[in-house]
Amino acid sequence: MSETVGLIGLGLMGRPMARNLIRAGYSLVVNNRSRGAVDDLLAEYPDVVAATTPAEVAKHARTVITMLPDSTDVERVAIGENGLIQEMQPGDLLIDMSTIAPATSREIFESLRFVGASSLDAPVSGGDKGAIAGTLSIMVGGREADFERARPLFEALGTTITHCGDAGAGQVVKACNQVVVGIAYQAVSEALVLGSKAGVDPRKIIEVLDGGLASTAVLRLRGESMINGDFEPGGRAELHLKDLGIVLETGKSLNVPLPVSSVVKQKYAELQALNRGHLDHSALLTLVEDQANHKIGRMT
Amino acid sequence: MSETVGLIGLGLMGRPMARNLIRAGYSLVVNNRSRGAVDDLLAEYPDVVAATTPAEVAKHARTVITMLPDSTDVERVAIGENGLIQEMQPGDLLIDMSTIAPATSREIFESLRFVGASSLDAPVSGGDKGAIAGTLSIMVGGREADFERARPLFEALGTTITHCGDAGAGQVVKACNQVVVGIAYQAVSEALVLGSKAGVDPRKIIEVLDGGLASTAVLRLRGESMINGDFEPGGRAELHLKDLGIVLETGKSLNVPLPVSSVVKQKYAELQALNRGHLDHSALLTLVEDQANHKIGRMT
Repeated sequence: MSETVGLIGLGLMGRPMARNLIRAGYSLVVNNRSRGAVDDLLAEYPDVVAATTPAEVAKHARTVITMLPDSTDVERVAIGENGLIQEMQPGDLLIDMSTIAPATSREIFESLRFVGASSLDAPVSGGDKGAIAGTLSIMVGGREADFERARPLFEALGTTITHCGDAGAGQVVKACNQVVVGIAYQAVSEALVLGSKAGVDPRKIIEVLDGGLASTAVLRLRGESMINGDFEPGGRAELHLKDLGIVLETGKSLNVPLPVSSVVKQKYAELQALNRGHLDHSALLTLVEDQANHKIGRMT
Repeated sequence: MSETVGLIGLGLMGRPMARNLIRAGYSLVVNNRSRGAVDDLLAEYPDVVAATTPAEVAKHARTVITMLPDSTDVERVAIGENGLIQEMQPGDLLIDMSTIAPATSREIFESLRFVGASSLDAPVSGGDKGAIAGTLSIMVGGREADFERARPLFEALGTTITHCGDAGAGQVVKACNQVVVGIAYQAVSEALVLGSKAGVDPRKIIEVLDGGLASTAVLRLRGESMINGDFEPGGRAELHLKDLGIVLETGKSLNVPLPVSSVVKQKYAELQALNRGHLDHSALLTLVEDQANHKIGRMT
C-alpha cells in the first residue's frame, strides 16, 4: 500500500503540488478552508480522502504538508483549535511549505516537540509554474534526520532541495531570497527607465548588463516581458509585499536595519494601493514608468 | 610604420591600457597632468612620446584616447585651453573612455563637429584587473562609422565591445550598469547580514540564492570575499559614488525619479565619510554590519 500523506491548503500552489504527489504514488488526505478546491480535486482523483479539520488529517497521516498564505494560518492549522497537534503522535512530521515568519516556524517546531512530533519549515521559490512543473526550489530548516525522511516527498515537488540549518533556517533563506529579488526588480526598473528615457534601446541595456557584474537573473528572465509590459505572474506583487513584511519583522526582532528592503516594501505597498497587487513582482517597473511619464516599450 | 595613437590620463586604468596598446603594435603619444606616471611609462617604453599639453597630443595623433576621472577633466582636455580641439583636424577622432555625464559626452561630440572632428564615448567596466588583462567591457556611443574605425583599438583593450547608440549612449548604459551593481551590493548586504544574524551560514545563503531568481553576479563573484571581509578593489567605492552622482544628475535632467539609486548613493557617501572610499564597492556590507553589530564572517 502506498504511503498516506496529508496536505492542507489547496490554493494556487497546493493544487498542482497535490497532483505531483499523487503522480509520485502517494495517497492523499486533504483539507482546505473552503470546500470548492477539495471537491475539484476529488472529481479529478476519487481516491483522495477529504478531512473536515486539520486534526482529522493528522489522524490519517504520519506526514502532513501545509501550504498556506501566512503565519497566522499555519499557526492555526498546526497548533490552534482542531489543529494538527491534537492528533499528532510521536514520530509524526509536519512539513510546512508556506512562506511565514522564521519565529513562527521555530515556535511550531517547539510546540510539536511536546507531543513527540517534529516539523520542517520548507518554503519554496519558483511560483505556481514551478509547482506545476515540479521544479520548485525548496529551502529547508529543521533536523537533519527529518530532512532525510522528507526528501522523497521534496523530490516529487522540486528539483533544488537544500537543507539550510535548524528550525526556521528555511524561512530565513527564503526571506534573504525575497530581499534580493525585490530589490533587484527595483534596480533594473530604475536602470531601464533611466536608460530608455535617455534614448537607449532597453534591449541593448539588457544585453550589455548581462555580460558583466550587473548580471542578474531578474533582468535575464524578466527583462523582455518588462519591456513588453507583460506582468502576468509569476510571483505576485502582493505576496512579495507579504514576504517583505516578514523580512522587516525579522530584521526588527534581530536589530538589523534594512533601509533598502524597507523602501522596496513601500514600493510594493504602492503597487497594492494602485490595485496592481495581482501583477507579477516585476511590475515595480510600472511605478518608475508612471513617475517618469515614460514607458520603456514605447521606443521599440 | 605603426599607427600613432594619443593617450591622455595615465592613472590606475590608463597605465595598463597603454601597455596593451603598445603590445598590440600602436605607437603612443601620451600626456598626463602629473609628470610621474609619464616618466614611469617612458622608462619602460623609451619609444613613447611625451606631449606637454592635450593640444600637442592632437598635433601628433589622428586618434586620441582619454581616460580621466570626471566630466570636468574630460571637458578641459577636449575643449578647454590647450585642449585637443585646438589642434584636431577634420576626420580626427576622440575616444573618451572615462565615465562621465552623458550630457558632457554629447556636448563634446557637438563641439568637435565644428572642426570636422568626431568623438565616441566609450566607458568601461571591469576595473583595473580588466584593464590589465585586456578584458574590459566597453560601452560605446557615437557614429557607427567611428565605432568601426575604433574597433581594432577597442579589441586591444577589451573583450565585450558594444555599440549602444548615438553620442552619449555609452555613458547612459554605463550609468544603468552602475545603478544595478550598486543597488545589488546593498541588496546582498542586507540579505547576508539578516540571514547570518538569524543564524544561517552565509555560504548556504549564497548557494541557495544563486540557484534561482535571486541569482546576481555580485553575489556569485564577490560573496565569498564579502564573507571574508576582503574589500581589496575591484571597483572603488568612491568611484561608484561619483558614478551614482552622474546617475542622479541624469535622472534629474530627464525627470526620472530614482528613489533606491538615491538611497544607495547616500550609502556610498557614508562609506566615503567613514574613510572607506578606497575600498571595493562591495564594502557597503560593512555599513549594514556596523549598524546590525554583526559580522557575517564571525560564525564560520
